[in-house]
Amino acid sequence: MKINNLKIPTLIINRERCFLNIEKMVAKARRNNLIFRPHFKTHQSREISRMFKYFRVDRITVSSLGMADFFAADGWSDITVAFPVNLHESETINRLNKKITLNLLVEEAETVRLLNQTLDEPLSVFVKIDTGSRRTGIRFDNIEIIDEVLNAISRSEKLSFAGFLAHAGHSYSCRTRPELHDFHAGQIEKTETLRQRYHAQHPEMIISLGDTPTASVAENFEGVDEIRPGNFVFFDIMQYQISSCDIDDIAVSMAAPIVATRPERNEITLYCGAVHLSKEYIENEGEKIFGYIIDPDSAGERQILPGAYVSKLSQEHGIVHLPDEYIGKFATGDFVEILPVHSCLTMNLMKDSALKFT
Amino acid sequence: MKINNLKIPTLIINRERCFLNIEKMVAKARRNNLIFRPHFKTHQSREISRMFKYFRVDRITVSSLGMADFFAADGWSDITVAFPVNLHESETINRLNKKITLNLLVEEAETVRLLNQTLDEPLSVFVKIDTGSRRTGIRFDNIEIIDEVLNAISRSEKLSFAGFLAHAGHSYSCRTRPELHDFHAGQIEKTETLRQRYHAQHPEMIISLGDTPTASVAENFEGVDEIRPGNFVFFDIMQYQISSCDIDDIAVSMAAPIVATRPERNEITLYCGAVHLSKEYIENEGEKIFGYIIDPDSAGERQILPGAYVSKLSQEHGIVHLPDEYIGKFATGDFVEILPVHSCLTMNLMKDSALKFT
Repeated sequence: MKINNLKIPTLIINRERCFLNIEKMVAKARRNNLIFRPHFKTHQSREISRMFKYFRVDRITVSSLGMADFFAADGWSDITVAFPVNLHESETINRLNKKITLNLLVEEAETVRLLNQTLDEPLSVFVKIDTGSRRTGIRFDNIEIIDEVLNAISRSEKLSFAGFLAHAGHSYSCRTRPELHDFHAGQIEKTETLRQRYHAQHPEMIISLGDTPTASVAENFEGVDEIRPGNFVFFDIMQYQISSCDIDDIAVSMAAPIVATRPERNEITLYCGAVHLSKEYIENEGEKIFGYIIDPDSAGERQILPGAYVSKLSQEHGIVHLPDEYIGKFATGDFVEILPVHSCLTMNLMKDSALKFT
Repeated sequence: MKINNLKIPTLIINRERCFLNIEKMVAKARRNNLIFRPHFKTHQSREISRMFKYFRVDRITVSSLGMADFFAADGWSDITVAFPVNLHESETINRLNKKITLNLLVEEAETVRLLNQTLDEPLSVFVKIDTGSRRTGIRFDNIEIIDEVLNAISRSEKLSFAGFLAHAGHSYSCRTRPELHDFHAGQIEKTETLRQRYHAQHPEMIISLGDTPTASVAENFEGVDEIRPGNFVFFDIMQYQISSCDIDDIAVSMAAPIVATRPERNEITLYCGAVHLSKEYIENEGEKIFGYIIDPDSAGERQILPGAYVSKLSQEHGIVHLPDEYIGKFATGDFVEILPVHSCLTMNLMKDSALKFT
């Protein structure tokens, strides 16, 4: 690696790649006349958030009230918390709702009723819709429950209906761009049935979609009003596996020192473990992969070393498997550059530890 | 859960259970005339470290120089960093080595040579031995390399040989107490060959063993001088699976609010994700398990709900699978108590977030 003065595992953030990733997504949103409300859970960073400000982004998504608080304190004034509302945090909700435009998510009529009781001021809510990811939300075709929740909102004094919000987390099972296009078309069919049913009653409602894979690849956003991708600012190995990005789009890498070499079993040991990368993995031919290794000799466009990968992680140790031909490239004391599997979890671990911007 | 005023996912630390776990291990070490050097990577907490001080523990293990620094600042004066030395941190090494008794780990002759060059003052090192875990260390029977490293130490001006240190991380594949006993006997056979070979030359050398599973279960420590378990202060589901502990020994649990219920698919959704529990899992009958659920109606001795478990984790969401008969026990807004799979990784995530001692 060419970065000097590194001592411990350090997450390297490539500012230029982040800017390019943001620029591309901003352009796509403008081209398609979409509200761009990027998800800031990926970075949770003031420094990265300023790159978005440069592109005049002024609406954001977060996944906790804690993050909403963090970014509101830094001047962000229109925030959607894309997570089912946690009523135990009503103090924070009321405090933020006085200060900024806060949008929350609901999916149960009883929660709507209780939220209404705890609010000091009016608040707009999205109804969370499940378009197949089966994580949270009301199934898009469960009209009975959707109506029940919409009725609860209209009966409440303080809540107003902002629209339907979905996160197609199951796009992560796609592996090719054509698959992602088909998947995205299927998503839009689902939200379109909702739009047609509720448009007359709620002409101002917003249809908001999430996930980085479809937002990165799709070009047709008919019937969609807002997108909320987050991961695209960094991308990672998981997105590369899905075909949402190329290796060279990945804007973060972990620099980690080699502390031992085991050529006889094709391994090097890194100071870099689960507390740095997280234990997220992808599988390839039955092997767990916790990160790919950048060729230290690749100049210009980065290359990953075929067949080399982080094969095991314990708390602070990482074991890298190396094919025979690459063993000579690495010695104890060198820094290795790793592309993480899931940049959101890696950044969450490293944000208060060691970061370096290039 | 009976703990009041919780708002967000909070790691509950049961002080009494920690004390009992420490007391038991202290007693075992005294009974067997062992140096007790507990591993503090599990908790990384000043408050927990004081419980050890109560038992007059004065020697500790950590897994990074950062942690050594943290505990040295809190008055700990005899610390082994049980991780292959990272020479990029020579500044920290020299600073700490002036202030406390610092022991480092080596496993390559070249590292010994380079470490010697960077040191300001004398320092004692353990030679890391691999007794089968294949993570780090020299194979216990690779006498040629062991001699090479010992010779490098004796040729150096500043290093002295403290002993052989092993961590039998592969004990984690055991599932019953008899298996653990056999495993431990096998470990001792291996370190015993080293003791016999090097005793005459290094009569003061220490044989130091690590891992919580064998330290918790074994009673015969003949030929061992020091133990360094860490996880036992909390235990967790992984240790329970190995048979190192009972459910009631587990001293940490995550309290997490239910934000949605999906009775039609036997699920509840928690505000509690990979950034709280970590993505560590165990497998049971082909299912990934990210945590077990405590029966909210269990009084006195805690019971886990059979068949209920955290089945999926994304960044902030946790999905709990519930058998039919337990669905009525949980409602949106309730706090659920989860036993984590790997308490070290969970504590690492929660230590700067939300902790509560009971």
